[in-house]
Amino acid sequence: MSPNGTLQAAHTNKVSVVLGAQWGDEGKGKLVDLLTENMQVVCRCQGGNNAGHTVIVGDKAYDFHILPCGIIWEGCESLIGNGVVIHLPGFFEELEKNIAKGLSGWETRLKISDRTHLVFDFHQHVDGMQESQREGLANTTKLGTTKRGIGPTYASKMNRTGVRLADLMDNFDDFSNKFSILADNYQVSFPGLKIDKAAEIERYKGLAEKIRPMVVESVSYLHTRLAEGKKVLVEGANAAMLDIDFGTYPYVTSSNCSIGGVCTGLGIPPKMVGDVYGVVKAYTTRVGDGPFPTELTEEIGAFLQKEGREFGVTTGRPRRCGWLDIPLLRFTSQVNGYTALALTKTDILDKLDEIKIGVNYVKNGKALDHYPSGIFQFEGVEVEYITMPGWKTSIAAVRKFEDLPQNAQKYVHKIEELLGIPMRWVGVGPERESMILRPDA
Amino acid sequence: MSPNGTLQAAHTNKVSVVLGAQWGDEGKGKLVDLLTENMQVVCRCQGGNNAGHTVIVGDKAYDFHILPCGIIWEGCESLIGNGVVIHLPGFFEELEKNIAKGLSGWETRLKISDRTHLVFDFHQHVDGMQESQREGLANTTKLGTTKRGIGPTYASKMNRTGVRLADLMDNFDDFSNKFSILADNYQVSFPGLKIDKAAEIERYKGLAEKIRPMVVESVSYLHTRLAEGKKVLVEGANAAMLDIDFGTYPYVTSSNCSIGGVCTGLGIPPKMVGDVYGVVKAYTTRVGDGPFPTELTEEIGAFLQKEGREFGVTTGRPRRCGWLDIPLLRFTSQVNGYTALALTKTDILDKLDEIKIGVNYVKNGKALDHYPSGIFQFEGVEVEYITMPGWKTSIAAVRKFEDLPQNAQKYVHKIEELLGIPMRWVGVGPERESMILRPDA
Ligand SMILES: Nc1nc2c(ncn2[C@@H]2O[C@H](COP(=O)(O)OP(=O)(O)O)[C@@H](O)[C@H]2O)c(=O)[nH]1
Ligand SMILES: Nc1nc2c(ncn2[C@@H]2O[C@H](COP(=O)(O)OP(=O)(O)O)[C@@H](O)[C@H]2O)c(=O)[nH]1
Repeated sequence: MSPNGTLQAAHTNKVSVVLGAQWGDEGKGKLVDLLTENMQVVCRCQGGNNAGHTVIVGDKAYDFHILPCGIIWEGCESLIGNGVVIHLPGFFEELEKNIAKGLSGWETRLKISDRTHLVFDFHQHVDGMQESQREGLANTTKLGTTKRGIGPTYASKMNRTGVRLADLMDNFDDFSNKFSILADNYQVSFPGLKIDKAAEIERYKGLAEKIRPMVVESVSYLHTRLAEGKKVLVEGANAAMLDIDFGTYPYVTSSNCSIGGVCTGLGIPPKMVGDVYGVVKAYTTRVGDGPFPTELTEEIGAFLQKEGREFGVTTGRPRRCGWLDIPLLRFTSQVNGYTALALTKTDILDKLDEIKIGVNYVKNGKALDHYPSGIFQFEGVEVEYITMPGWKTSIAAVRKFEDLPQNAQKYVHKIEELLGIPMRWVGVGPERESMILRPDA
Repeated sequence: MSPNGTLQAAHTNKVSVVLGAQWGDEGKGKLVDLLTENMQVVCRCQGGNNAGHTVIVGDKAYDFHILPCGIIWEGCESLIGNGVVIHLPGFFEELEKNIAKGLSGWETRLKISDRTHLVFDFHQHVDGMQESQREGLANTTKLGTTKRGIGPTYASKMNRTGVRLADLMDNFDDFSNKFSILADNYQVSFPGLKIDKAAEIERYKGLAEKIRPMVVESVSYLHTRLAEGKKVLVEGANAAMLDIDFGTYPYVTSSNCSIGGVCTGLGIPPKMVGDVYGVVKAYTTRVGDGPFPTELTEEIGAFLQKEGREFGVTTGRPRRCGWLDIPLLRFTSQVNGYTALALTKTDILDKLDEIKIGVNYVKNGKALDHYPSGIFQFEGVEVEYITMPGWKTSIAAVRKFEDLPQNAQKYVHKIEELLGIPMRWVGVGPERESMILRPDA
């Protein structure tokens, strides 16, 4: 440990981070993919396979849920950090699907922290049962979880009945015992829950050997890479407004998808966090229930939904759509401290005559001086908009910022001005090439 | 929001942070108290009233569990951040005890985030029941929790059945409904649990009005203070090795007491985190079960326990004692990125002939290159020590580093050298004055 400890104190290498700035599905995958070309390590720090990134390379569309996008780049290592929760059967399924699409060389490049907590099938069943329960109760609604067991697993982690990958690696009897206690607890709480403990334990015996070659102690792994000067990228899953602390609780996911999750989920101190890129969709979308002040429920909402293909990748659920929301972005920018932004799906606005931007939340005639923290604080909130003229032409083929229609440039500049943060990229289509870089921004 | 948003982007003000570098009880309270003299805001970011700081001012010993230490300084605001969990009855009890000791002026200076999660009495009962359950099972031990309901409350938070202060403030019917659903859930899981729901709801009606004047939206509150140039200190509760992610799970507390908790528990981005001070006891202690490689079970252990008064403040439980552990400190330093350290309780070593420092963990004859992540990885680990001569004289009255006995200075320098981090303070007694400052370190 001594050499690393000493090295670590000396170097000034920092990680770069990509975070969702709204309610998810901003197109983080594409930016991560772009940046990964120059990276040597790409990490996930929180969440589980409830996230979904689509990365299009040539004629192949890779689908990542738990795998870091870096995995498709030869020469790039991928790390699943301690803050992630992992469903091993789902993990191997995803791996195999992508292998079938051509993924190779992952054996030596994919690393998983032994501190990650395991998602068991029963966590997933409990997730579903909790949702049904919510639906059945008065004055409460479902949260719209993906039923991947993420919430229950983080709850087990907090109860300190959670089972970590290290438990599976180190002592199988102890693993079985921990698994069994946890399963028993859940069966008491959810009498309808059926768990074949013996069969599960047997299955995990096999999974243990399958996963073993990838397991690392990730804090020293990552700090060693940083000390060696390797370029490291962290890809956030989910998004700031789904953060367990800062999102619109309870309509959130059960991890910190804001910047703090990078520190807690990888063991990197703040002084080693460098660029923080916020990914902003050119309008706003949200899946499932919860407040959404700039939501468009009529014609334009339906237009954005259709034009932007705003349907969940896994579930097919339509996403709610609305105008860009500056108060929301100001809030997530306070929390995350973005050093630059990427505007995605700008092309989806191509056909609109006018584009609005929500610039203030107003209540009883007064602009709110902070973002609402509770659901009820959204009641009576009205959004003050500014209206920008549309550009009424396809920008899909544009590759230089100066070549964008004046009105599209104005839209970008207005957002920069309202947020005081440079817009380094402008997305004009789903392909890797369809991302205009503004190197000076 | 606009003015703050713009200001925020411009300023370079950063928060300072004090963190426990071992397993807690390092004496963070004293350093926080010292630093607070020059602070305008002192914040808590995680944990609950499971923490315990003793601050001695003149002939008064203040006891803080949930209150930030800053509260005793007039002219200093105190913030309980969103990452904290709060038991309101316990909070008011603690407040009143300290008022009886002379605390005043807190009414205008104490602020609480409306995003904090509420700890209910039943969370505390469940905490106790979970511990008893663990004791009753084969191959598992109790965790040694303080039974303050901290773990179950963070679990509720993750399950998104948690109730936040905002719920209590905004709509009492909704609060009652949420309380009731949560209580019902726990009663199913713990059939022995008795909850008088109507009485509790009635009690919280009163508590709501009592707490209301202190409740703030803490992200905008804190960012505004930072933008105004106010000096902000964050006091960590618990310690790095009790961190839910990086500690010796499951013998940990249910929050991130490493540096990431500052970001997730206050909404401060890494770029606004400045000095990070690690508090290191001159030897090692640990409360409750869990691995402890440098533990001294015989004579010297008993000496340290007695001389250092190593008994829990609340519970009276004796703390396990051992030599200073460098591999542990290197690990928490990787995670936390200390910019400087404070060595406390150096005076407790006054009478020893020799003092050892654990410098390496060795297994099968080889030094480990990373800190063990799972409990079983500690098996077969032996500690390699170096031995330093003691100073055999009281240092309690020393106020300048140069006036310390040579061997005490050597002990400090050796630790600095082993960790590569400057030791800015050396504690030689419990009083505020008994902290040697080394301004150049
Ligand atoms: N039209 C268009 N589609 C984009 C753009 N950027 C990303 N996408 C697509 O938008 C979808 C959303 O991305 P997704 O991977 O679900 O979001 P993530 O979870 O934030 O990575 C994907 O199908 C992307 O290919 C863009 O600039 N224009
Ligand atoms: N003898 C001695 N006692 C100290 C020193 N620093 C702190 N203490 C005492 O050690 C105890 C531990 O501090 P405590 O508040 O429980 O730890 P915290 O939770 O880390 O703040 C308190 O009673 C302090 O007054 C020191 O340098 N020497």
